[in-house]
Amino acid sequence: MRSPQSLRNGETPSPHPRIPTPHFRSTVSEQKLKRFNSLILIFRVAAFCFSLASAIFMLTNNRGSASPRWYDFDAFRYVLATNAMVAIYSIVEMAASVWEISRNATMLPEIVQVWFDFGHDQVFAYLLLSADSAGTALARTFKDGDKCTVNNAFCVQTDIAIALGFGGFLFLGFSSLLSGFRVACFIIKGSRFHL
Amino acid sequence: MRSPQSLRNGETPSPHPRIPTPHFRSTVSEQKLKRFNSLILIFRVAAFCFSLASAIFMLTNNRGSASPRWYDFDAFRYVLATNAMVAIYSIVEMAASVWEISRNATMLPEIVQVWFDFGHDQVFAYLLLSADSAGTALARTFKDGDKCTVNNAFCVQTDIAIALGFGGFLFLGFSSLLSGFRVACFIIKGSRFHL
Repeated sequence: MRSPQSLRNGETPSPHPRIPTPHFRSTVSEQKLKRFNSLILIFRVAAFCFSLASAIFMLTNNRGSASPRWYDFDAFRYVLATNAMVAIYSIVEMAASVWEISRNATMLPEIVQVWFDFGHDQVFAYLLLSADSAGTALARTFKDGDKCTVNNAFCVQTDIAIALGFGGFLFLGFSSLLSGFRVACFIIKGSRFHL
Repeated sequence: MRSPQSLRNGETPSPHPRIPTPHFRSTVSEQKLKRFNSLILIFRVAAFCFSLASAIFMLTNNRGSASPRWYDFDAFRYVLATNAMVAIYSIVEMAASVWEISRNATMLPEIVQVWFDFGHDQVFAYLLLSADSAGTALARTFKDGDKCTVNNAFCVQTDIAIALGFGGFLFLGFSSLLSGFRVACFIIKGSRFHL
């Protein structure tokens, strides 16, 4: 909580500030921070939508007893588990983002929040890419065999689920860049504000 | 070239500085930067060793005409190509790192260098993880079939190559964190020096 702005949490805004210049500067930087946080929120929402859709597509990929089942393959279980985790994590992060935009303060103490966000973003982004790549490699082996000529719908739905997972990775990667920037701000300036 | 330190490149050090305090501070921060750059160099060397070993292990995985060949499988070609690219990229980055440590100046203009390092680190780290995950998924399908009972040496060497690739990814990921921090320093302070 070393940020000068965060010290003002809970204060009522004064209509007649005694020192106009710092107040003006702080309003400008708060607006910029709000825009920065809104951008993160947009990426979080996009990552949530993609990873949830991917998890649902993989989970509902059951086409009768003659068709292969997703849970018989490690890589597809990996895809489903990772996308579901990212969807849940995105909900938490969306809540934290909305909280921060509406109250100008982080949900957890600032140092915990910036490291929590960045650490989880990095780990989940790498995990999601790894799962989707493994899923792609397995899906390709199906095309080389005759599984996809017999069960084309299964293969198509698997491909869609994996493609949606890559979309989720893309937006999680963008979030990770922004949260990494906040960590660097915190290390250099002792505050997540870079202005 | 907005760094105050980089403006001094090429100057001969004066034995009698006229302003002792800034000179002292700059020496301390230069030493810290040297330590930071040495850490990056260590990660680069480690990433180079692992990715080169991985590429060699994959490339030499030919065990006669009865055995499967690595170049018949997309995922293994992907593993070899990515590891070879990372090994070449690591040589370039090691040279840039040694140059920077010995001359206190970046090889390219500072803004280009920090973004070049960070951008390539990110892309290659994700690419390497993706290739190794795809390789792992394919190698697992071999174990489910009878390929690995007939050609066990092929499977073992493939596993070693992929494991070495994961090692390379680990060190490239660490480099990516440090070069990301340098980019953030550059954005916030207009210099890759954070002190």
